Amino acid sequence: MSNMLIAQSGGPTAAINASLSGAIQEAIRSGEIGQVYGALNGVEGMLAGTIIDLRAQFSRQEDFTILECTPAMALGSCRFRLPQEEEDPALYQKIDGIFRRYDIGYFFYIGGNDSMDTVDKLSRHFARTGQDIRIIGIPKTIDNDLPGTDHSPGFGSAAKFIATSVLEIIRDCYVYDTDSVTIVEIMGRNAGWLAASAALPRTVGARAPHLIYLPEVVFDPEQFIRDVKEILSLTRNCIVAVSEGVRLSDGTFAAENFQSGVVDAFGHRYLSGVGKYLEALVRDKVGCKVRSIELNVLQRCSSHLLSATDVREARKIGSYAIRFALQGQTGVMMVFERVSNRPYMVRIGCRPVAEIANREQLVPRAWINKQGNDITEEMFDYLLPLIEGEVSHPTQNGMPQHFVLEKSIVG
Amino acid sequence: MSNMLIAQSGGPTAAINASLSGAIQEAIRSGEIGQVYGALNGVEGMLAGTIIDLRAQFSRQEDFTILECTPAMALGSCRFRLPQEEEDPALYQKIDGIFRRYDIGYFFYIGGNDSMDTVDKLSRHFARTGQDIRIIGIPKTIDNDLPGTDHSPGFGSAAKFIATSVLEIIRDCYVYDTDSVTIVEIMGRNAGWLAASAALPRTVGARAPHLIYLPEVVFDPEQFIRDVKEILSLTRNCIVAVSEGVRLSDGTFAAENFQSGVVDAFGHRYLSGVGKYLEALVRDKVGCKVRSIELNVLQRCSSHLLSATDVREARKIGSYAIRFALQGQTGVMMVFERVSNRPYMVRIGCRPVAEIANREQLVPRAWINKQGNDITEEMFDYLLPLIEGEVSHPTQNGMPQHFVLEKSIVG
Repeated sequence: MSNMLIAQSGGPTAAINASLSGAIQEAIRSGEIGQVYGALNGVEGMLAGTIIDLRAQFSRQEDFTILECTPAMALGSCRFRLPQEEEDPALYQKIDGIFRRYDIGYFFYIGGNDSMDTVDKLSRHFARTGQDIRIIGIPKTIDNDLPGTDHSPGFGSAAKFIATSVLEIIRDCYVYDTDSVTIVEIMGRNAGWLAASAALPRTVGARAPHLIYLPEVVFDPEQFIRDVKEILSLTRNCIVAVSEGVRLSDGTFAAENFQSGVVDAFGHRYLSGVGKYLEALVRDKVGCKVRSIELNVLQRCSSHLLSATDVREARKIGSYAIRFALQGQTGVMMVFERVSNRPYMVRIGCRPVAEIANREQLVPRAWINKQGNDITEEMFDYLLPLIEGEVSHPTQNGMPQHFVLEKSIVG
Repeated sequence: MSNMLIAQSGGPTAAINASLSGAIQEAIRSGEIGQVYGALNGVEGMLAGTIIDLRAQFSRQEDFTILECTPAMALGSCRFRLPQEEEDPALYQKIDGIFRRYDIGYFFYIGGNDSMDTVDKLSRHFARTGQDIRIIGIPKTIDNDLPGTDHSPGFGSAAKFIATSVLEIIRDCYVYDTDSVTIVEIMGRNAGWLAASAALPRTVGARAPHLIYLPEVVFDPEQFIRDVKEILSLTRNCIVAVSEGVRLSDGTFAAENFQSGVVDAFGHRYLSGVGKYLEALVRDKVGCKVRSIELNVLQRCSSHLLSATDVREARKIGSYAIRFALQGQTGVMMVFERVSNRPYMVRIGCRPVAEIANREQLVPRAWINKQGNDITEEMFDYLLPLIEGEVSHPTQNGMPQHFVLEKSIVG
């Protein structure tokens, strides 16, 4: 009976530990897996041998419940991209050594696009070298940009936080009886799923947000000012949701001039400031009271406001990953297929990770209105089930309880 | 049996409608008050005659529950400061006319410092002119800067949101294994109560925030950099909470250079950017990865995360205001006196509003550590009871239900 190794990677989400919880619980339940190991800080920790024993840390069922309500990776994360085997054969030999040393038969990687690239490379390596080591990707991303799956765990909770916060900001906007523009800046470099979820307050009677701009449509600053003026001709408050990643017709980010030029480990530009940019634009071209609000990292770590649907699905897809591995799957990412919206039903399956890695799932153009400043009914139907349901948390001193793993390295 | 008028003013809080709810319920229950009128947009609406009937809008007890979970003023707000009577006697004659027209015997104003100034002026006017019209202030402010009361409704929920969000940001910070500084900018122009509440995660085992800067202590940028370097010599993550209002030794706001120079209706400088300023400072003087997060208006309107203590007290102080008015009180603000921390007990009383208006309650220097970069045990003891308890909300489509008043003006 061989052992399993699990790790987490990429940017935090509020629900990523629910997948970890589901996987650990299913591994124990199955009786077909020996040790349940976790690597700290993703593949970096696997390479560094910072591997811990997970099974021993969960003495009570309640520990899993608390873990599921703990935001960001309990195992830590990394931004490490595995090189091709031909570029660094020694690294792959090192990996072989580590897998042999810990007798790993199963490796699960919970992450986004870059992590699925690692799943792809590892599974191809083990297949080519004839080793029966099963490598499975478990999706997570607040951006919801992983292809091949209806949606990804982590997105629903981020969408719920955005929808709720925007609804509360709307209430905040309507208290004064003066003309004003409020701009809410929402995460999403290339995909507008998160910004789209800012529209959800309109399904519960809110009159706003009035305008929504996603990165999938070219952003025209002049059209934006015309849009704002039109709203202000109808109502005193104009509320705008905008994705951090909106681009001008020349392909540059609209906020480019407001940026620091810092790049992350993958060479992505550091993005911030589209809210501040649009705020300055409105002040200059419209002249009324204006403010911008950046929802910032709270979008990805606010596990005090989890979507019950998201957490349940994240746990389930984690546990199914174990079952699929035991049934012989490898080189795949777990996926959701949506069966229906009303009632909401999904089926869990898997797809070859090679079809998924390094690709992005954007919002279909048909789910954005013709003018490019709002979303359509199809998008509402898609989004609503994903934010459904509340999770009540164990608390301590008026704050949520979190589960912190003991990080004693296995010798 | 004369009628009552109630209004709300100043900046929004998440709990301000709980005081409105408590007052309306008590007015109905008392059987000693005729009509229950609300003025839209505070004193401005009272002067404009935009007055609505409140009693008719609450057919079910559940309506009050939903109102209590609705952020920002259900009646709308204003930033209007009543002039002295000698400056504008005609305005006071107009007020007399409105009070006579609606047969108002009681006026309740839910608000902060500026609103208490209005309570003071109105009550002195009616006393001087020998009219038995009772004017009572009901405190609300997220800043907690009203003197004469142990704390103000609205603060506890804001503190709970800050404590919870900072705890979640801490989890988010610890996922990567690299040196980094995270700066969380918190509201509070002059008083540091809100920034202090960022320390609460340390009471549930979190290792951060490491440094806390309040406006009550002069901010020294060089000492700040030394503080950050010292923390980084001990741990890879340095997490800082800073109040938007920290000032340099010359009395200017630390973030002054980053500000737009816009002033609000009272001539207050528009504040933003201390987080961005400290971020730039760390990038320049320390050189490691750094980011800043502004919690922004979510601090005052996140009623999805109410403190149960705050809501219960806000409701109660609203209902006591009615009782005190019926007993003959006028020219007072309702206050909390803390009886004990463990068990937490408060008594509700009232104080002459003249002692309160236009004054600010700052954090005592003794509740800040000697170095001026952290808070003391007394502050923890003071804060913890105020964020205690969770409120579960009625929801719709995965979002909180809000109560929106029908705004039909009474003829």
